[in-house]
Amino acid sequence: MSGRAVTVALDGYGAEQGFEVLAEGARLAAADGLGVRVFGPERPLGLEDAPGVDVVPTPEFIGNDVDPVPAVRAEKEASVVRAARDVAAGNAGAMVSCGSTGATMAAATFGLRRIQGVQRPALAVQVPVPGKPVLFLDVGANVEVRAQHLVQFAFLGAAFSAAVLGVSNPSVGLLTVGEESGKGRAEVVEAHRLLGQAPGIDFAGNVEGRDLPAAAVDVVVTDGFTGNVSLKLLEGTANTVAAAVGDAARANPIAALGGLLLKPALGGLRRELHPDTTGGAILLGLRGIAVVGHGSSGAEGIANAIRLAARCAEVDAVGRTAALLAEGGAARAALAAEVDA
Amino acid sequence: MSGRAVTVALDGYGAEQGFEVLAEGARLAAADGLGVRVFGPERPLGLEDAPGVDVVPTPEFIGNDVDPVPAVRAEKEASVVRAARDVAAGNAGAMVSCGSTGATMAAATFGLRRIQGVQRPALAVQVPVPGKPVLFLDVGANVEVRAQHLVQFAFLGAAFSAAVLGVSNPSVGLLTVGEESGKGRAEVVEAHRLLGQAPGIDFAGNVEGRDLPAAAVDVVVTDGFTGNVSLKLLEGTANTVAAAVGDAARANPIAALGGLLLKPALGGLRRELHPDTTGGAILLGLRGIAVVGHGSSGAEGIANAIRLAARCAEVDAVGRTAALLAEGGAARAALAAEVDA
Repeated sequence: MSGRAVTVALDGYGAEQGFEVLAEGARLAAADGLGVRVFGPERPLGLEDAPGVDVVPTPEFIGNDVDPVPAVRAEKEASVVRAARDVAAGNAGAMVSCGSTGATMAAATFGLRRIQGVQRPALAVQVPVPGKPVLFLDVGANVEVRAQHLVQFAFLGAAFSAAVLGVSNPSVGLLTVGEESGKGRAEVVEAHRLLGQAPGIDFAGNVEGRDLPAAAVDVVVTDGFTGNVSLKLLEGTANTVAAAVGDAARANPIAALGGLLLKPALGGLRRELHPDTTGGAILLGLRGIAVVGHGSSGAEGIANAIRLAARCAEVDAVGRTAALLAEGGAARAALAAEVDA
Repeated sequence: MSGRAVTVALDGYGAEQGFEVLAEGARLAAADGLGVRVFGPERPLGLEDAPGVDVVPTPEFIGNDVDPVPAVRAEKEASVVRAARDVAAGNAGAMVSCGSTGATMAAATFGLRRIQGVQRPALAVQVPVPGKPVLFLDVGANVEVRAQHLVQFAFLGAAFSAAVLGVSNPSVGLLTVGEESGKGRAEVVEAHRLLGQAPGIDFAGNVEGRDLPAAAVDVVVTDGFTGNVSLKLLEGTANTVAAAVGDAARANPIAALGGLLLKPALGGLRRELHPDTTGGAILLGLRGIAVVGHGSSGAEGIANAIRLAARCAEVDAVGRTAALLAEGGAARAALAAEVDA
């Protein structure tokens, strides 16, 4: 794999469109100069001669239908577990799986371990808002959280936004039911109070559901239950509206002509809104990089997941996140000392 | 007000677009044959000679900037409190306010009281999904809930869907992070178990964020935190996508022509998606009808809120909901006896 900028360990199972699509995604990413190590089935994937792609024959895998944590503990030779081990061993700089989200999170958390001081890793996505992507977390790693977890998500999100997305001094909003500081569940109200005192973060206060598609802030923080529901709702609503525009363009011949003339200009929007464009979700807070691709991804979506993982490795997202968290930790320790005094 | 099908008590304050717009909304609804009693300012609203509209001079009101529960308890002559009292006294069949949601909920809950057996009233909206509206609750009355509250919301939503929206045997889904019964917060998992055993309701199991805009079920149940975030997110996303389509239609002259030709066919979609179309949220579980209109409503939105309240009164939504809840209660009691045996 010499000469390749970054090598990514790819779980060879879990792509709903099949091995061929997954293999095509690996080939596309390798064509960009990336290395890909595919932990896939022994049967030929047509990748034998693809430059930059290594297949590591791996017959075992963890499906969507099993409880992920015990499965990851028990099945040491499953593809997603081996991909995580490959990163821990230094053979790859990042891992990608389009299989079970739970199994990927478990394999990454056990295999790559948490950054010092991080209590709960969080799953983050770039929400495909037209024009300005918003980093949104947690979208499913933690369905129940305490206030200090939300505070950590804010720091993890801000660090990733600065380190990987290149946003300088990213603004961070806390998702809840109203702008005022007292609005929301108890843990959200407490997280608001803590973030309001936290140095080293540009806390923009509470944000509401409408502020996410409006890209009112750079990073939106919530628990994994609200985040998962919200992300799927946002993607579903965008699809429904886009489909309704398509229906309108079939309403009559004049509308159809209008739709035809408008179509090229709408192409960019369709690309921006498509889940494949962002490549998937990133598990933040670990000592290695793990990307959870969409199970439904096409080849381009899988390639984008690999590219996202590689970009995180190239900019040393883990090291920079750890450094920013340590700064924040020092700042928070100082604050705690002040409060105690 | 004789000869008017239904009379609605309207809070004369809280419309962000001003008294004139509120008055125009009252006039539009009255033109349909409804009676409207406006608890508004003493200064003329231009409604003096409007047929079907009575103005009850009311100088006091509760703003958005105060804690609603103590304000409603203290300010007996505030417009929203008087509107609720008007319904309780039988002068009006329903109330509408476009002011503070919290104050409206408090005034309605204190003034109209709960249906027997209802622990927590819930705020429900018809989500403007193109083609088939979905009843969605709770969208903000209860930011923290227990499992039995979610179960009650399911029965309240199903009863309203059948009684007012005319859906026969409405299907009810529980909003969470995955289809499997074990997915979600503890109270959601428990509510799933309880609803799975409950007779008298067509429980469709868990639904995810994407199922709401896809109208996969007739009624979607969640807590008031997730519901409020989701509703605002859905409205915001629809706006963002619609605006992006508009931007695309300004990208170049050919796209502009396309947009122009497509515009008439898109008009229906724009109407369907506009929050004003549904008129607002309904507080379910009370012995009277209270509709919370959008503060940002235009005259048509205010008229639609009044029409929605009147329709609920005309079909005896309260009586039919109470009857369905009592049936469900009897069925649940029978089930509990069976479980105990």
